[in-house]
Amino acid sequence: MPQIKLTIEYDGTNYVGWQFQPNGISIQEVMEGAIAKVLREPVTLRSSGRTDAGVHARGMVACFVTKKVLPMSAYVDGVNCYLPADIAVVHAEPVSDSFNPRFDTKGKHYRYTVLCDPGRSPLSRLYVLQYKERLDVERMRLAAGLFVGEHDFASFRTSGCAAKTTVRRIDSVTVSCEGDFLHIDVKGSGFMRNMVRIMAGTLVEIGRGKMSGQDIIRCLREPGSLAGPTAPPHGLCLIQVYY
Amino acid sequence: MPQIKLTIEYDGTNYVGWQFQPNGISIQEVMEGAIAKVLREPVTLRSSGRTDAGVHARGMVACFVTKKVLPMSAYVDGVNCYLPADIAVVHAEPVSDSFNPRFDTKGKHYRYTVLCDPGRSPLSRLYVLQYKERLDVERMRLAAGLFVGEHDFASFRTSGCAAKTTVRRIDSVTVSCEGDFLHIDVKGSGFMRNMVRIMAGTLVEIGRGKMSGQDIIRCLREPGSLAGPTAPPHGLCLIQVYY
Repeated sequence: MPQIKLTIEYDGTNYVGWQFQPNGISIQEVMEGAIAKVLREPVTLRSSGRTDAGVHARGMVACFVTKKVLPMSAYVDGVNCYLPADIAVVHAEPVSDSFNPRFDTKGKHYRYTVLCDPGRSPLSRLYVLQYKERLDVERMRLAAGLFVGEHDFASFRTSGCAAKTTVRRIDSVTVSCEGDFLHIDVKGSGFMRNMVRIMAGTLVEIGRGKMSGQDIIRCLREPGSLAGPTAPPHGLCLIQVYY
Repeated sequence: MPQIKLTIEYDGTNYVGWQFQPNGISIQEVMEGAIAKVLREPVTLRSSGRTDAGVHARGMVACFVTKKVLPMSAYVDGVNCYLPADIAVVHAEPVSDSFNPRFDTKGKHYRYTVLCDPGRSPLSRLYVLQYKERLDVERMRLAAGLFVGEHDFASFRTSGCAAKTTVRRIDSVTVSCEGDFLHIDVKGSGFMRNMVRIMAGTLVEIGRGKMSGQDIIRCLREPGSLAGPTAPPHGLCLIQVYY
């Protein structure tokens, strides 16, 4: 059966995350409802992964199979007609039956954004961590490189994470400034639950001078070491999934 | 008495505009309440002007007088403690008694932002006009220059506008692209009610090919001519007020 691959942008503010949850509305649930209205048949989405409650996405990828043959515009403009303003399909394309949005992933790009000094921006509040202290960007930039490579990231996952292996490959971590905004861009093979947020929280502590690059080295060498705090979800955005 | 000049950023989404209104909560009202809590006395703000319901600001200017002598941080961090997340004081400075935030204005900079093709962005939806059609940016850019100079802008104000004179000086109107976003930046001596939004709406019609530069010339020569539609408020932001 034909399989359709969707690229989805969403503002995660009002959702319990990508995946179905009993305690609130998920993006997956809203998406499946909208696609079902266009197809006039129930549909199940398989995604490249999950995002936590409050996390945003510019390029979440999810697929579904259907016997129906509709133009791709039906899955963009058509589905968007049934979606709330905070979720949108930005691209649709047919892919082979064998394509697996989760296991065929070559990598993902996440961006965590912090607003430093003055640390308050009403116009960005939903999408950045507003931070009152000044951060030493150069110190963060130098430390960020320590994450790169294949490491055991067991110290950088939430206690509820059930991943079988905790080894992941990080391709790059860059820290850049855009006006008062500080972007932490992380690219890697895959991520465990809260991993990017704990990496971002650790880099923020390093920017404050409360932790150092040595702490990253320790956390990577000794799985289970205490890393920095988990940065709040609203500063995080899944930018792109690579195949 | 000492006068304090505040620069204020706000997300206008949830407000009836800057100025007090009987039908909802205004930014002025929320601001005055927060300052009164810090000063422990009632206060009246005089602003550089108004913004309509739903319009945003990065640099609204408003002043108040008080006998109390507090450090400027009390009017930034202190007042911010009492403000909701969608309003913030970004700067405070003492100014002379004679300073008038409205009449001493040398000019203002407004930005209107349009998202063209694909015309839907959940992450920007509160701050840009999402437009489904492609716009001819070069055509808009050429026409934008026609606004520059001192003209009678009577065709570019809302019917409810009670301004005594309709002559205004426009210093520049630029149309620029940033990815899929199109910015219309307007700088001028002063603006009547809805003026920037009608100018933006006219430029969008020109970008669609439904109007032309000739229509701008006609509207400026013949006050009361039919200009383009008033673009919706959420795409507009007051960037800066010059003194």
